[in-house]
Amino acid sequence: MQSDNFKIKDIFKDVIFTENEVEIITSLFHKINVKKGSVLLNAGESVNEQYYILDGCLRSYHIDTHGKEHTVQFGIKDWWISDYTGFFTSEKSIMTIEVIQDATLYRIAVKDKEYLYKKIPKIDRFFRIKLERAFAGFQKRILSNLSQSARERYLDFMKTYPNIEKSIKNYHIASYLGITTESLSRIRKEL
Amino acid sequence: MQSDNFKIKDIFKDVIFTENEVEIITSLFHKINVKKGSVLLNAGESVNEQYYILDGCLRSYHIDTHGKEHTVQFGIKDWWISDYTGFFTSEKSIMTIEVIQDATLYRIAVKDKEYLYKKIPKIDRFFRIKLERAFAGFQKRILSNLSQSARERYLDFMKTYPNIEKSIKNYHIASYLGITTESLSRIRKEL
Repeated sequence: MQSDNFKIKDIFKDVIFTENEVEIITSLFHKINVKKGSVLLNAGESVNEQYYILDGCLRSYHIDTHGKEHTVQFGIKDWWISDYTGFFTSEKSIMTIEVIQDATLYRIAVKDKEYLYKKIPKIDRFFRIKLERAFAGFQKRILSNLSQSARERYLDFMKTYPNIEKSIKNYHIASYLGITTESLSRIRKEL
Repeated sequence: MQSDNFKIKDIFKDVIFTENEVEIITSLFHKINVKKGSVLLNAGESVNEQYYILDGCLRSYHIDTHGKEHTVQFGIKDWWISDYTGFFTSEKSIMTIEVIQDATLYRIAVKDKEYLYKKIPKIDRFFRIKLERAFAGFQKRILSNLSQSARERYLDFMKTYPNIEKSIKNYHIASYLGITTESLSRIRKEL
Protein backbone atom coordinates (compact mmCIF):
# COMPACT_ATOMS: atom_id res chain seq x y z
CA MET A 1 0.00 0.00 0.00
CA GLN A 2 1.38 3.37 -1.00
CA SER A 3 -0.11 5.23 1.90
CA ASP A 4 1.21 3.19 4.81
CA ASN A 5 3.34 5.99 6.18
CA PHE A 6 0.84 8.80 5.77
CA LYS A 7 0.55 10.80 9.01
CA ILE A 8 -2.84 12.39 9.40
CA LYS A 9 -1.47 15.11 11.71
CA ASP A 10 0.78 16.37 8.91
CA ILE A 11 -2.25 17.71 7.09
CA PHE A 12 -5.15 17.98 9.52
CA LYS A 13 -3.21 19.41 12.44
CA ASP A 14 -5.92 20.35 14.91
CA VAL A 15 -8.86 18.38 13.59
CA ILE A 16 -10.08 15.54 15.80
CA PHE A 17 -11.14 12.38 13.98
CA THR A 18 -12.58 9.04 15.09
CA GLU A 19 -10.52 5.91 14.47
CA ASN A 20 -12.79 4.98 11.61
CA GLU A 21 -12.37 8.41 10.01
CA VAL A 22 -8.60 8.19 10.33
CA GLU A 23 -8.74 4.88 8.50
CA ILE A 24 -10.80 6.30 5.64
CA ILE A 25 -8.57 9.36 5.26
CA THR A 26 -5.37 7.34 5.47
CA SER A 27 -6.55 5.04 2.70
CA LEU A 28 -7.10 7.94 0.28
CA PHE A 29 -3.88 9.92 0.58
CA HIS A 30 -0.78 8.59 -1.11
CA LYS A 31 2.71 9.66 -0.15
CA ILE A 32 4.99 10.18 -3.14
CA ASN A 33 8.52 11.41 -3.69
CA VAL A 34 9.10 13.51 -6.79
CA LYS A 35 12.34 14.71 -8.32
CA LYS A 36 13.24 18.25 -9.35
CA GLY A 37 12.18 18.75 -12.97
CA SER A 38 9.21 16.36 -12.83
CA VAL A 39 5.96 17.65 -14.26
CA LEU A 40 2.87 16.59 -12.30
CA LEU A 41 0.32 18.18 -14.60
CA ASN A 42 0.44 19.65 -18.08
CA ALA A 43 -1.79 22.46 -19.30
CA GLY A 44 -4.62 20.97 -21.35
CA GLU A 45 -4.87 17.76 -19.33
CA SER A 46 -7.72 16.66 -17.09
CA VAL A 47 -7.14 17.52 -13.46
CA ASN A 48 -7.53 14.40 -11.37
CA GLU A 49 -5.39 15.15 -8.35
CA GLN A 50 -4.41 17.65 -5.72
CA TYR A 51 -1.14 17.68 -3.79
CA TYR A 52 -0.24 18.53 -0.23
CA ILE A 53 3.41 19.50 0.06
CA LEU A 54 5.17 17.87 2.99
CA ASP A 55 8.57 19.07 1.84
CA GLY A 56 10.24 20.57 -1.23
CA CYS A 57 9.01 23.17 -3.70
CA LEU A 58 6.61 23.17 -6.66
CA ARG A 59 5.50 25.83 -9.09
CA SER A 60 2.31 26.25 -11.11
CA TYR A 61 2.50 28.42 -14.19
CA HIS A 62 0.43 29.51 -17.14
CA ILE A 63 1.82 30.12 -20.62
CA ASP A 64 0.10 32.92 -22.51
CA THR A 65 -0.44 33.07 -26.28
CA HIS A 66 2.88 34.88 -26.74
CA GLY A 67 4.66 31.97 -25.05
CA LYS A 68 5.35 33.99 -21.93
CA GLU A 69 5.31 32.15 -18.58
CA HIS A 70 3.32 33.49 -15.64
CA THR A 71 4.05 31.85 -12.30
CA VAL A 72 0.70 31.60 -10.53
CA GLN A 73 1.83 29.94 -7.32
CA PHE A 74 4.86 28.56 -5.58
CA GLY A 75 4.02 25.60 -3.38
CA ILE A 76 6.14 25.08 -0.28
CA LYS A 77 5.89 23.04 2.92
CA ASP A 78 2.31 22.81 4.23
CA TRP A 79 0.73 24.28 1.06
CA TRP A 80 -1.68 22.66 -1.36
CA ILE A 81 -1.20 22.84 -5.08
CA SER A 82 -3.35 21.94 -8.08
CA ASP A 83 -4.89 23.60 -11.10
CA TYR A 84 -7.93 24.77 -9.18
CA THR A 85 -9.94 25.77 -12.21
CA GLY A 86 -9.72 22.21 -13.43
CA PHE A 87 -9.90 20.60 -10.00
CA PHE A 88 -13.12 22.36 -9.09
CA THR A 89 -14.90 22.52 -12.43
CA SER A 90 -13.78 19.41 -14.38
CA GLU A 91 -12.45 21.62 -17.17
CA LYS A 92 -9.00 20.96 -18.63
CA SER A 93 -6.00 22.38 -16.81
CA ILE A 94 -4.90 25.89 -17.73
CA MET A 95 -1.66 25.53 -15.76
CA THR A 96 1.40 23.33 -15.65
CA ILE A 97 2.69 22.10 -12.30
CA GLU A 98 6.38 21.30 -12.04
CA VAL A 99 8.68 20.27 -9.22
CA ILE A 100 11.44 22.83 -8.77
CA GLN A 101 13.05 21.24 -5.72
CA ASP A 102 12.88 17.50 -4.78
CA ALA A 103 9.61 17.08 -2.92
CA THR A 104 7.56 14.73 -0.78
CA LEU A 105 3.86 15.04 -1.41
CA TYR A 106 0.55 13.63 -0.29
CA ARG A 107 -1.59 13.07 -3.35
CA ILE A 108 -5.36 12.77 -3.33
CA ALA A 109 -7.66 12.12 -6.29
CA VAL A 110 -10.56 14.47 -7.04
CA LYS A 111 -13.08 11.64 -6.69
CA ASP A 112 -11.58 10.52 -3.36
CA LYS A 113 -11.77 14.03 -2.03
CA GLU A 114 -15.45 14.16 -2.99
CA TYR A 115 -15.90 10.89 -1.13
CA LEU A 116 -14.18 12.34 1.94
CA TYR A 117 -16.51 15.34 1.94
CA LYS A 118 -19.52 13.05 1.87
CA LYS A 119 -18.27 10.72 4.59
CA ILE A 120 -16.67 13.24 6.95
CA PRO A 121 -18.37 16.66 7.09
CA LYS A 122 -15.62 18.23 9.20
CA ILE A 123 -13.40 17.93 6.13
CA ASP A 124 -15.77 20.45 4.51
CA ARG A 125 -14.99 22.92 7.26
CA PHE A 126 -11.24 22.32 7.03
CA PHE A 127 -11.15 23.03 3.30
CA ARG A 128 -13.71 25.82 3.48
CA ILE A 129 -11.27 27.72 5.71
CA LYS A 130 -8.24 26.84 3.53
CA LEU A 131 -10.17 28.03 0.48
CA GLU A 132 -11.16 31.33 2.09
CA ARG A 133 -7.51 32.06 2.80
CA ALA A 134 -6.34 30.95 -0.63
CA PHE A 135 -9.00 33.00 -2.40
CA ALA A 136 -8.37 36.10 -0.30
CA GLY A 137 -4.61 35.72 -0.76
CA PHE A 138 -4.87 35.36 -4.51
CA GLN A 139 -7.29 38.27 -4.88
CA LYS A 140 -5.07 40.46 -2.71
CA ARG A 141 -2.02 39.58 -4.74
CA ILE A 142 -3.71 40.44 -8.04
CA LEU A 143 -4.90 43.78 -6.70
CA SER A 144 -1.56 44.52 -5.04
CA ASN A 145 0.06 44.05 -8.43
CA LEU A 146 -2.00 46.98 -9.66
CA SER A 147 -0.98 49.28 -6.83
CA GLN A 148 2.44 48.24 -5.63
CA SER A 149 5.82 48.93 -7.11
CA ALA A 150 7.94 45.96 -8.22
CA ARG A 151 10.15 46.56 -5.18
CA GLU A 152 7.18 46.30 -2.78
CA ARG A 153 5.99 43.17 -4.53
CA TYR A 154 9.43 41.64 -4.18
CA LEU A 155 9.46 42.40 -0.44
CA ASP A 156 5.99 40.83 -0.12
CA PHE A 157 7.20 37.79 -1.99
CA MET A 158 10.13 37.41 0.40
CA LYS A 159 7.72 37.57 3.34
CA THR A 160 5.30 35.04 1.83
CA TYR A 161 7.99 32.60 0.79
CA PRO A 162 10.85 32.90 3.28
CA ASN A 163 13.97 30.86 2.45
CA ILE A 164 12.64 29.93 -0.96
CA GLU A 165 14.85 32.31 -2.87
CA LYS A 166 18.06 30.33 -2.90
CA SER A 167 16.38 27.22 -4.29
CA ILE A 168 14.56 28.67 -7.28
CA LYS A 169 15.57 30.35 -10.51
CA ASN A 170 15.48 34.08 -11.02
CA TYR A 171 13.09 33.83 -13.93
CA HIS A 172 10.62 31.95 -11.70
CA ILE A 173 10.56 34.85 -9.28
CA ALA A 174 10.44 37.43 -12.06
CA SER A 175 7.50 35.68 -13.73
CA TYR A 176 5.69 35.56 -10.39
CA LEU A 177 6.23 39.27 -9.84
CA GLY A 178 5.39 40.15 -13.44
CA ILE A 179 8.76 41.78 -14.12
CA THR A 180 11.88 40.99 -16.16
CA THR A 181 14.88 39.24 -14.62
CA GLU A 182 16.84 42.47 -15.26
CA SER A 183 14.41 44.43 -13.09
CA LEU A 184 14.69 41.76 -10.41
CA SER A 185 18.50 42.08 -10.35
CA ARG A 186 18.23 45.86 -10.12
CA ILE A 187 15.79 45.64 -7.17
CA ARG A 188 18.08 43.21 -5.34
CA LYS A 189 21.08 45.45 -5.80
CA GLU A 190 19.15 48.44 -4.44
CA LEU A 191 18.03 46.63 -1.30
CA MET B 1 -37.61 42.40 12.90
CA GLN B 2 -35.79 43.18 9.70
CA SER B 3 -35.63 39.60 8.56
CA ASP B 4 -39.27 38.63 8.72
CA ASN B 5 -39.62 38.10 5.00
CA PHE B 6 -36.38 36.25 4.42
CA LYS B 7 -37.01 33.11 2.36
CA ILE B 8 -34.45 30.42 3.07
CA LYS B 9 -34.95 28.78 -0.34
CA ASP B 10 -33.79 31.95 -2.07
CA ILE B 11 -30.25 31.27 -0.91
CA PHE B 12 -29.99 27.62 0.09
CA LYS B 13 -31.95 26.15 -2.78
CA ASP B 14 -31.40 22.44 -2.40
CA VAL B 15 -30.15 22.20 1.16
CA ILE B 16 -32.48 20.48 3.61
CA PHE B 17 -32.67 22.03 7.08
CA THR B 18 -34.52 21.15 10.27
CA GLU B 19 -37.11 23.61 11.59
CA ASN B 20 -34.70 24.70 14.27
CA GLU B 21 -31.96 25.34 11.71
CA VAL B 22 -34.34 27.37 9.55
CA GLU B 23 -35.10 29.51 12.58
CA ILE B 24 -31.42 30.15 13.32
CA ILE B 25 -30.62 31.01 9.70
CA THR B 26 -33.67 33.23 9.31
CA SER B 27 -32.72 35.23 12.37
CA LEU B 28 -29.27 36.05 10.98
CA PHE B 29 -30.04 37.23 7.45
CA HIS B 30 -31.50 40.68 7.00
CA LYS B 31 -33.34 41.73 3.86
CA ILE B 32 -32.49 45.24 2.72
CA ASN B 33 -33.35 47.45 -0.24
CA VAL B 34 -30.58 49.66 -1.55
CA LYS B 35 -30.71 52.45 -4.10
CA LYS B 36 -28.51 52.91 -7.15
CA GLY B 37 -25.49 54.97 -6.13
CA SER B 38 -25.35 53.70 -2.54
CA VAL B 39 -21.97 52.58 -1.28
CA LEU B 40 -22.08 49.52 0.98
CA LEU B 41 -18.39 49.39 1.78
CA ASN B 42 -15.49 51.80 1.30
CA ALA B 43 -11.90 50.74 0.74
CA GLY B 44 -10.01 51.03 4.01
CA GLU B 45 -12.98 50.11 6.21
CA SER B 46 -13.41 46.97 8.28
CA VAL B 47 -15.39 44.30 6.51
CA ASN B 48 -18.26 43.23 8.71
CA GLU B 49 -20.80 41.97 6.20
CA GLN B 50 -21.43 39.90 3.14
CA TYR B 51 -24.36 40.32 0.75
CA TYR B 52 -26.48 37.90 -1.20
CA ILE B 53 -28.08 39.58 -4.21
CA LEU B 54 -31.75 38.74 -4.61
CA ASP B 55 -32.19 41.32 -7.33
CA GLY B 56 -30.39 44.32 -8.86
CA CYS B 57 -26.72 44.88 -9.59
CA LEU B 58 -23.63 45.74 -7.54
CA ARG B 59 -20.02 46.32 -8.39
CA SER B 60 -16.83 45.91 -6.39
CA TYR B 61 -13.80 47.87 -7.52
CA HIS B 62 -10.27 48.67 -6.49
CA ILE B 63 -8.59 52.02 -7.06
CA ASP B 64 -4.88 51.79 -7.78
CA THR B 65 -2.23 54.34 -6.77
CA HIS B 66 -2.70 56.20 -10.06
CA GLY B 67 -6.39 56.65 -9.25
CA LYS B 68 -7.45 54.16 -11.89
CA GLU B 69 -10.51 52.00 -11.14
CA HIS B 70 -10.40 48.23 -11.61
CA THR B 71 -13.76 46.48 -11.50
CA VAL B 72 -13.14 43.20 -9.67
CA GLN B 73 -16.65 41.81 -9.74
CA PHE B 74 -20.15 42.57 -10.86
CA GLY B 75 -22.76 41.10 -8.55
CA ILE B 76 -26.07 40.08 -10.07
CA LYS B 77 -29.06 37.95 -9.02
CA ASP B 78 -28.03 34.91 -6.99
CA TRP B 79 -24.40 36.06 -6.49
CA TRP B 80 -22.60 36.90 -3.30
CA ILE B 81 -20.51 40.02 -2.93
CA SER B 82 -18.09 41.31 -0.32
CA ASP B 83 -14.47 42.32 -0.02
CA TYR B 84 -13.28 38.78 0.49
CA THR B 85 -9.78 39.68 1.55
CA GLY B 86 -11.26 41.64 4.44
CA PHE B 87 -14.15 39.26 5.05
CA PHE B 88 -11.90 36.25 5.41
CA THR B 89 -8.85 37.74 7.07
CA SER B 90 -10.11 40.64 9.23
CA GLU B 91 -7.87 43.06 7.32
CA LYS B 92 -9.27 46.36 6.07
CA SER B 93 -11.16 46.38 2.80
CA ILE B 94 -9.15 46.87 -0.40
CA MET B 95 -12.30 47.35 -2.47
CA THR B 96 -15.32 49.59 -2.62
CA ILE B 97 -18.76 48.07 -3.16
CA GLU B 98 -21.39 50.23 -4.81
CA VAL B 99 -24.94 49.64 -5.98
CA ILE B 100 -25.19 50.30 -9.72
CA GLN B 101 -28.83 49.27 -10.10
CA ASP B 102 -31.50 49.35 -7.32
CA ALA B 103 -31.09 46.11 -5.44
CA THR B 104 -32.63 43.82 -2.84
CA LEU B 105 -30.05 42.05 -0.72
CA TYR B 106 -29.75 39.61 2.13
CA ARG B 107 -27.08 40.85 4.47
CA ILE B 108 -25.21 38.70 6.97
CA ALA B 109 -22.58 39.79 9.48
CA VAL B 110 -19.16 38.09 9.55
CA LYS B 111 -19.66 37.04 13.17
CA ASP B 112 -23.14 35.62 12.44
CA LYS B 113 -21.74 33.62 9.56
CA GLU B 114 -19.10 32.18 11.87
CA TYR B 115 -21.90 31.27 14.28
CA LEU B 116 -23.83 29.55 11.47
CA TYR B 117 -20.78 27.46 10.55
CA LYS B 118 -20.46 26.31 14.13
CA LYS B 119 -24.14 25.50 14.61
CA ILE B 120 -24.94 24.00 11.20
CA PRO B 121 -22.09 22.07 9.56
CA LYS B 122 -23.93 21.65 6.25
CA ILE B 123 -23.48 25.41 5.80
CA ASP B 124 -19.74 24.65 5.62
CA ARG B 125 -20.37 22.40 2.65
CA PHE B 126 -22.61 24.91 0.92
CA PHE B 127 -20.02 27.67 1.11
CA ARG B 128 -17.09 25.35 0.45
CA ILE B 129 -18.64 24.60 -2.95
CA LYS B 130 -19.50 28.27 -3.63
CA LEU B 131 -15.93 29.20 -2.74
CA GLU B 132 -14.43 26.58 -5.02
CA ARG B 133 -16.39 27.99 -7.94
CA ALA B 134 -15.64 31.60 -7.06
CA PHE B 135 -11.92 30.90 -6.67
CA ALA B 136 -11.71 28.89 -9.89
CA GLY B 137 -13.69 31.55 -11.74
CA PHE B 138 -11.51 34.38 -10.52
CA GLN B 139 -8.28 32.53 -11.25
CA LYS B 140 -9.50 31.62 -14.71
CA ARG B 141 -10.45 35.21 -15.45
CA ILE B 142 -7.05 36.55 -14.38
CA LEU B 143 -5.24 33.99 -16.53
CA SER B 144 -7.61 34.50 -19.46
CA ASN B 145 -6.73 38.18 -19.35
CA LEU B 146 -3.15 37.20 -20.12
CA SER B 147 -4.06 35.05 -23.10
CA GLN B 148 -7.24 36.41 -24.59
CA SER B 149 -7.78 39.38 -26.85
CA ALA B 150 -10.01 42.20 -25.58
CA ARG B 151 -12.68 41.02 -28.02
CA GLU B 152 -12.66 37.47 -26.56
CA ARG B 153 -12.79 38.88 -23.03
CA TYR B 154 -15.79 41.00 -24.01
CA LEU B 155 -17.58 37.95 -25.40
CA ASP B 156 -16.82 36.04 -22.18
CA PHE B 157 -18.14 38.94 -20.15
CA MET B 158 -21.40 38.90 -22.14
CA LYS B 159 -21.75 35.18 -21.44
CA THR B 160 -21.01 35.53 -17.72
CA TYR B 161 -23.29 38.50 -17.22
CA PRO B 162 -26.16 38.19 -19.69
CA ASN B 163 -28.57 41.15 -19.81
CA ILE B 164 -26.34 43.22 -17.57
CA GLU B 165 -25.01 45.42 -20.31
CA LYS B 166 -27.90 47.83 -20.71
CA SER B 167 -27.98 48.67 -17.01
CA ILE B 168 -24.34 49.54 -16.39
CA LYS B 169 -21.98 52.22 -17.61
CA ASN B 170 -19.43 51.66 -20.34
CA TYR B 171 -16.54 52.57 -18.09
CA HIS B 172 -17.62 49.86 -15.63
CA ILE B 173 -17.34 47.23 -18.35
CA ALA B 174 -14.09 48.70 -19.69
CA SER B 175 -12.53 48.70 -16.20
CA TYR B 176 -13.61 45.07 -15.75
CA LEU B 177 -12.04 44.07 -19.06
CA GLY B 178 -8.92 46.14 -18.45
CA ILE B 179 -9.38 48.25 -21.59
CA THR B 180 -10.33 51.84 -22.41
CA THR B 181 -13.92 52.85 -23.18
CA GLU B 182 -12.71 53.70 -26.70
CA SER B 183 -11.52 50.13 -27.24
CA LEU B 184 -14.84 48.86 -25.91
CA SER B 185 -16.77 50.99 -28.45
CA ARG B 186 -14.54 49.73 -31.25
CA ILE B 187 -15.10 46.08 -30.26
CA ARG B 188 -18.87 46.58 -30.13
CA LYS B 189 -18.91 48.17 -33.58
CA GLU B 190 -16.91 45.26 -35.00
CA LEU B 191 -19.25 42.60 -33.59
